[in-house]
Amino acid sequence: MSISTPKNRKARTRTGLLRIEGGQAFAKSDLLITEEPLEIRLVAGSGKQKVRHTLAVTMRTPGSDFELAAGFLFAEGVITSRGQIQRIAYCTDAGEPQHYNIVNVELKSDTLPDLAPLERHFYTTSACGVCGKAGLDNLRLRYAKLDSDFQIPAETVAQLPEKLRVQQGLFEQTGGLHAAAIFDGSGNLLALREDVGRHNALDKLVGWALLENRLPLSQCLVLVSGRASYELAQKTLAAGIPALAAISAPSSLAVDLAKEFNLTLIGFLRGSFNIYCFPERIRLNP
Amino acid sequence: MSISTPKNRKARTRTGLLRIEGGQAFAKSDLLITEEPLEIRLVAGSGKQKVRHTLAVTMRTPGSDFELAAGFLFAEGVITSRGQIQRIAYCTDAGEPQHYNIVNVELKSDTLPDLAPLERHFYTTSACGVCGKAGLDNLRLRYAKLDSDFQIPAETVAQLPEKLRVQQGLFEQTGGLHAAAIFDGSGNLLALREDVGRHNALDKLVGWALLENRLPLSQCLVLVSGRASYELAQKTLAAGIPALAAISAPSSLAVDLAKEFNLTLIGFLRGSFNIYCFPERIRLNP
Repeated sequence: MSISTPKNRKARTRTGLLRIEGGQAFAKSDLLITEEPLEIRLVAGSGKQKVRHTLAVTMRTPGSDFELAAGFLFAEGVITSRGQIQRIAYCTDAGEPQHYNIVNVELKSDTLPDLAPLERHFYTTSACGVCGKAGLDNLRLRYAKLDSDFQIPAETVAQLPEKLRVQQGLFEQTGGLHAAAIFDGSGNLLALREDVGRHNALDKLVGWALLENRLPLSQCLVLVSGRASYELAQKTLAAGIPALAAISAPSSLAVDLAKEFNLTLIGFLRGSFNIYCFPERIRLNP
Repeated sequence: MSISTPKNRKARTRTGLLRIEGGQAFAKSDLLITEEPLEIRLVAGSGKQKVRHTLAVTMRTPGSDFELAAGFLFAEGVITSRGQIQRIAYCTDAGEPQHYNIVNVELKSDTLPDLAPLERHFYTTSACGVCGKAGLDNLRLRYAKLDSDFQIPAETVAQLPEKLRVQQGLFEQTGGLHAAAIFDGSGNLLALREDVGRHNALDKLVGWALLENRLPLSQCLVLVSGRASYELAQKTLAAGIPALAAISAPSSLAVDLAKEFNLTLIGFLRGSFNIYCFPERIRLNP
């Protein structure tokens, strides 16, 4: 598989503004986090038999675009291995003013894969029923319970937010970013990705792991900078990661999913923290 | 138009957890914010000519579901007035275990409206181009520049976050919610909605205004609890609200949209604040 190197796109954009303090206005300049749409396209076949399909357009922060595309496809169940990918590249069709907001994921296959998983992602059943339970039922068709023996000391978990903060370069400058990071059981940071969208930051991480042949990440914990939603828990499960920690609160459906699939779920990680299920992976001091 | 009264669904869910503090574990109970999918369906015609179409499934916090459905349809340009709606109700098809996660928006029309605005929302053009500029170009077809003479004193703006916090009941208990609130030029809170999804909170507000015949909200400011993304700026524009304030950072594309459509954009509203464009609507002390 060849992967062209992404061009450097600007993750930050400078802007002028008026700062209001104590009823006074001051002209200032500051950095904004860049938000731009990324279109993710699947391409199969070649020559006259080439077929293209736009799967998603996501508002993202430029950077790690190929990882984002690959991670999205894997986490949503559209592809199941790195080996299915022939090449990932920015769209290079002629006569277009810019190409860096379209990523083509070219498959080795001559045909497009089953896109039903994307449909199932929307939890719709054929009948008049849509609920969290239906979503979990569908996930059960795709994923087994996490059976990893991964463990991490409680005191190491408590130190992860500071490690994230130190590494989170973009946030320091703009205050506008979500981050997701992978740690091993000793608290070593393996990878960190940032994005205006929380789901994108995690997709970028999953894509990194897929392209580096590191999946499943069965001896790792993923830390997210904000809240833990159902969507983040689902992507964590897809990557085979046995522990999800969030700086802020989890949602009810994230907890339901975690309980169903043996995922250790940590919330309000700010020195102290809450464990919502499967605490046996967190080692307390003797 | 008749609107059935939504049943009270639980916005919070109680859960047991293990609290880890200083290496010690304590069993605790706490409230989680409820996250459940809501399917939004359009229904047109009647009898054998009845047609249904699922427009979206969004992960939301139960509550104000009819406003959410109506606001989503309006903000996305699928409907353009309250008068097009015959009735909003939870799905009541027989033989289903639960209905409160499906909202049917029944139109007076016998046919479904043009759903192209939803497609356009994804910024795809017919050519190989997708970018923020294309998105703004498409919005230009739907919306005029905001020409409201709305004004609000800077000292009033500075007090809005505290007013939001006092009113934001759910967040106080769970720490897991986004909020959006409408204020008039004197800083009076007109409506507040909360949700796990920032876009849902704003859709609920827009739906409230639509169903109360208050659109456009040309003499109001909307405050959101988190960051200001392109999506939130677009929904603010759709509701005709001339000022958007965020507790946290705006994105580059939100600022681009605001500049293009004469929207006053405020960020980092924490006592002091930043104005990114159209500061003439913010009155400084003489």
